Amino acid sequence: MIFRESGMALNLAQKLISEHLVEGSVTEGQEIGLKIDQTLTQDATGTLVMLEFEAMGIPRVETEVSVQYVDHNLMQLDNKNQEDHIFLKSACEKFGIWFSRPGNGVSHPVHMERFGIPGKTLLGSDSHSCAAGSLGMLAMGAGGLEVAMAMAGKPFYVTMPRVMGVRLAGSLPPWVSAKDVILEMLRRHGVKGGTGKIIEYYGPGLEHLSAMDRHVIANMGAELGATATVFPSDDRTREFLAQQDRVNDWRPLEADKDAAYDEQDEIDLSALEPLIALPVSPGNVVPVSQVAGKEIHQAYIGSSANPGFRDFAIAALILQGRSAAAHVSLDINPSSRDVLENLSREGYLNLLIKAGARIHQTGCNGCIGMGQAPASGKISLRTVPRNFPGRSGTKEDQVHLCSPETAAVSAIQGKICDPRNAGFEYPPYKEPEQWSRNTDLLLAPRQIEQTELEKGQNIQSLPDLDPLPDEITAPVILKTGDDISTDEILPAGARVLPFRSNIPKISEFTFSQLDEQFYRRALDTKEQGSIIVGGANYGQGSSREHAALAPRYLGVRIVIAKSFARIHWQNLANFGILALTFSREGDYDRVSQGDTLSFRDLRAQLLQGGSIRARINGTDDEIILHQQLSERQIEMVLAGSLISLVRRSA
Amino acid sequence: MIFRESGMALNLAQKLISEHLVEGSVTEGQEIGLKIDQTLTQDATGTLVMLEFEAMGIPRVETEVSVQYVDHNLMQLDNKNQEDHIFLKSACEKFGIWFSRPGNGVSHPVHMERFGIPGKTLLGSDSHSCAAGSLGMLAMGAGGLEVAMAMAGKPFYVTMPRVMGVRLAGSLPPWVSAKDVILEMLRRHGVKGGTGKIIEYYGPGLEHLSAMDRHVIANMGAELGATATVFPSDDRTREFLAQQDRVNDWRPLEADKDAAYDEQDEIDLSALEPLIALPVSPGNVVPVSQVAGKEIHQAYIGSSANPGFRDFAIAALILQGRSAAAHVSLDINPSSRDVLENLSREGYLNLLIKAGARIHQTGCNGCIGMGQAPASGKISLRTVPRNFPGRSGTKEDQVHLCSPETAAVSAIQGKICDPRNAGFEYPPYKEPEQWSRNTDLLLAPRQIEQTELEKGQNIQSLPDLDPLPDEITAPVILKTGDDISTDEILPAGARVLPFRSNIPKISEFTFSQLDEQFYRRALDTKEQGSIIVGGANYGQGSSREHAALAPRYLGVRIVIAKSFARIHWQNLANFGILALTFSREGDYDRVSQGDTLSFRDLRAQLLQGGSIRARINGTDDEIILHQQLSERQIEMVLAGSLISLVRRSA
Repeated sequence: MIFRESGMALNLAQKLISEHLVEGSVTEGQEIGLKIDQTLTQDATGTLVMLEFEAMGIPRVETEVSVQYVDHNLMQLDNKNQEDHIFLKSACEKFGIWFSRPGNGVSHPVHMERFGIPGKTLLGSDSHSCAAGSLGMLAMGAGGLEVAMAMAGKPFYVTMPRVMGVRLAGSLPPWVSAKDVILEMLRRHGVKGGTGKIIEYYGPGLEHLSAMDRHVIANMGAELGATATVFPSDDRTREFLAQQDRVNDWRPLEADKDAAYDEQDEIDLSALEPLIALPVSPGNVVPVSQVAGKEIHQAYIGSSANPGFRDFAIAALILQGRSAAAHVSLDINPSSRDVLENLSREGYLNLLIKAGARIHQTGCNGCIGMGQAPASGKISLRTVPRNFPGRSGTKEDQVHLCSPETAAVSAIQGKICDPRNAGFEYPPYKEPEQWSRNTDLLLAPRQIEQTELEKGQNIQSLPDLDPLPDEITAPVILKTGDDISTDEILPAGARVLPFRSNIPKISEFTFSQLDEQFYRRALDTKEQGSIIVGGANYGQGSSREHAALAPRYLGVRIVIAKSFARIHWQNLANFGILALTFSREGDYDRVSQGDTLSFRDLRAQLLQGGSIRARINGTDDEIILHQQLSERQIEMVLAGSLISLVRRSA
Repeated sequence: MIFRESGMALNLAQKLISEHLVEGSVTEGQEIGLKIDQTLTQDATGTLVMLEFEAMGIPRVETEVSVQYVDHNLMQLDNKNQEDHIFLKSACEKFGIWFSRPGNGVSHPVHMERFGIPGKTLLGSDSHSCAAGSLGMLAMGAGGLEVAMAMAGKPFYVTMPRVMGVRLAGSLPPWVSAKDVILEMLRRHGVKGGTGKIIEYYGPGLEHLSAMDRHVIANMGAELGATATVFPSDDRTREFLAQQDRVNDWRPLEADKDAAYDEQDEIDLSALEPLIALPVSPGNVVPVSQVAGKEIHQAYIGSSANPGFRDFAIAALILQGRSAAAHVSLDINPSSRDVLENLSREGYLNLLIKAGARIHQTGCNGCIGMGQAPASGKISLRTVPRNFPGRSGTKEDQVHLCSPETAAVSAIQGKICDPRNAGFEYPPYKEPEQWSRNTDLLLAPRQIEQTELEKGQNIQSLPDLDPLPDEITAPVILKTGDDISTDEILPAGARVLPFRSNIPKISEFTFSQLDEQFYRRALDTKEQGSIIVGGANYGQGSSREHAALAPRYLGVRIVIAKSFARIHWQNLANFGILALTFSREGDYDRVSQGDTLSFRDLRAQLLQGGSIRARINGTDDEIILHQQLSERQIEMVLAGSLISLVRRSA
């Protein structure tokens, strides 16, 4: 209770941090370590997380609750998908994790329904894990290995964020809903406006937003770039938990009176109008009226950005007695099996079917490019959180982001339509009095661990990552230019991604876009070890861990570059690759592909800090290299990887 | 009424043929031409059919009813799918075709619901088009170009089949349903037992089989290899049409008393037990009890082989208050939007959701390998018609075919279970008293043609196919061995199939499995023309038209082989490639790849019949070649293709 001791009035974000702070001090910009109460993994990232957890050698998770969801890859185009599901189920049984079966729903709404508890921390290997902030949790997305570490009971390290307070006043007018609130935030602040910040909502407007409405807003905090979004836990939170039969999990939480914020903003809900994000960024927000009249070919309702019962029910009420225009594909993507069952019981599902909707299976589906891709250049209106170019699966897509109200009215009209001009009254919506709950698709952790991991053909245990040798004499097997991205180090895409749980196989694609012979060369030097020389900004782009893990598997022990992109630099340390920079940039020219570099007393040099010396081609010709690793990172590299380090201490 | 004139007592198949015979005589084994009243195309074959129809230059279809369904490719992994849908819609508007939108359902049940009329003929570019025989139609599957011809008002040519009469007696016991009847037929007769035959069901057992039950049996007539399956049109047919609000389309139809059949069989329905087809053929049928107890990982209900309201409702009733075992994925694939809406309204859908089912969008889906692929080696129980190896999308799949009863009970148990051992009573099922009909997803043909075809990036008009030149001097650009399959001529698979509506693009894959340089060589000689020399049984395997169309597009004018597979030989003629055989098989050795062959007076030689002479490499060295083309086929080849021929006469 670091803040509390100082007697300050605290905002809610500060309270949540204080209650979970285990390392560091709460100074803006400093690294802090937080205790993680709950973790969430989904299947696209979860298989690697489970393999990492297996490699750590820890028998059971040490969190209060860890849940593995299967929501991303539900297509099952070949054997790999179902084999992933079977593997994940066995991992849950072995490690003491809840398993949310395929069909149970998207992680974020299901987690909120079943596990969300005000005041707890949640770390998820999915960028929208922040949605749980809707219940007064401190919820953050992170890389897979960081979530595996949290599952092992280790703290999560993050730079102490600033807190932006957003006061909500008034109440939403007809045809305007929670999606328009977060679109307004994006209109004001853009996609980088939340970077390094926690966004905390408060004020009198909150009483008009249900917990699920708040989910909509917290979810797309990710699009603002925010570290987290926090809502108070109040009567609306209590109502939601009561509906879920978990009222005992409720506790009130709010900022202290007179709490201060690092930044301030205010939204008058009653002044909002329907908004829409144009291609190709969630930040391109304009009023719907400004683009009204454009022909649409798809209206898509669902995803974790509009997952609530209300979101589907309001669309159903709008579509009641009407139907989607002849050229519009109306795609309904139920977010959770409970939402689907309740929609079905209350008759809303029937209204949607009557209106010509295509009812898809419960899951992430088209939101992450798993089906429902639109035609090139044709407008698709979606309630999803992101419209990055090509994310829909179509290269030249035209995805617009909007509320269910805007999507439903536009589906009827066949063109973008400000729902206030629907030509009929905003239908009155009431929460259902009865709420069906069903946990058949949610498997509780077993009490006794004894299960073997069930690994299909495509799931391979992580390779052992041995400690850093004290002497390394190894060839430079690749020398690259500047700005090499992780896409060039290890491509994504449909050809490569299916092998994300199979490091030996995915390694075949390492640097394949740059040099088709790389894989062969690396295999030849796998035992001996090898070195890569890079230019400036080495490892920019996507944070994918495979771009470090795959080269490491192939025997790469050291990367020397002019400079590194931050996340990849951390990933290199995590997987035991020593990242060094030239003391003088010009030294880059002194090393060629094929040269041999020799390092002596490497461990001692690292522990002493400072510069590291390497001899070129066995001569007395030396280059001086630098490293900026923290003590924690040096330990990882010496141990062979973060996983090896944890395993040793386990 | 050819038979009638002879005063014979006729079976129903003979009556239907007589009423539609426009060419030939009804002698077994002779080619007959039949008037086609209705056509059905689905999207996987339909885009090419529409391009063929466009190329014929005929303004509007000349059938009574033509319907284009979108049911196969609903995944939309990228832009191509939705662009296909948009193209098909525009083609329907242009050519006067009904358009069944994505989400409206699988062609076969929807066609039965909306368009099936006793006594009519139906030709469909889908092998299960025979399902419409359930309503007393003569319904057959055929290649795309044959359906395009039927749309143009041309007769369909088929070898006059034998008629096998199957007398049904008794009524089905509890837990046994229509699927078990067709599985019994497959158990008795195997997958070739129906080849060259129409199977006609009759007898007192019929009164216990609803029209939709008959659909189940007629649909899988395709698995027996039958040309068609025919059921009488009786009171049960009338009931079905009344439910569909089309009672006026009903007329009674049955075999004459004392009608004879070429073959006879009889099934006592009351003696049937639950049956199951083991991998990897629908013909591997054994009693369910024989394989009971094996663990299953998927239970899949749906497809055109069990599309009825009853089939889903009975599964729902079995699952009521129960749920699928924790390791079983229960996949529900609604067959038509009306079935889905009625299931929803009557509460059955809710029962399925409650039981943990994954509700998929309405369509063919996993039945044709579009998703829902099982894990390798894990048993998947499916109500679908086929379990050929790999059809599910998984190479080493273990798909078993069974009734909805067997699938539902086994889902609960988690293992294959004879449903009679479910441990509870067979739930009583009643047809719903009310039936919702909704045609929002079914667009009627427009009255006035004026629409432009809307071709996405991936849809290219068919190339012009010019008449056969009288003199050809062209190189042999490929010489193959024996038994070259159409898969080797033009591969299928996920990499190639998406280009099925783009002949220039798909042609790049021609012979790519055999000779990667073929495409380049063929391009070089495209204008001049080229020749392929093949061995025995050239063109075996799949009937795909692209294996003729793509080489033709690349300038191949003549294929000389030791012998041809029948369907490919017809396809070559359809697309204007002259198929010749060596008069002496040994002459195969006299021609090498790279040789030039010269033909003179080719048209005259063809019209005269008999042998055709070619000179080798401009010398006096001649080889003598044969052709077995019919007059109709010679006309096609001379015109450049069947399409060119129709266009010329249009």
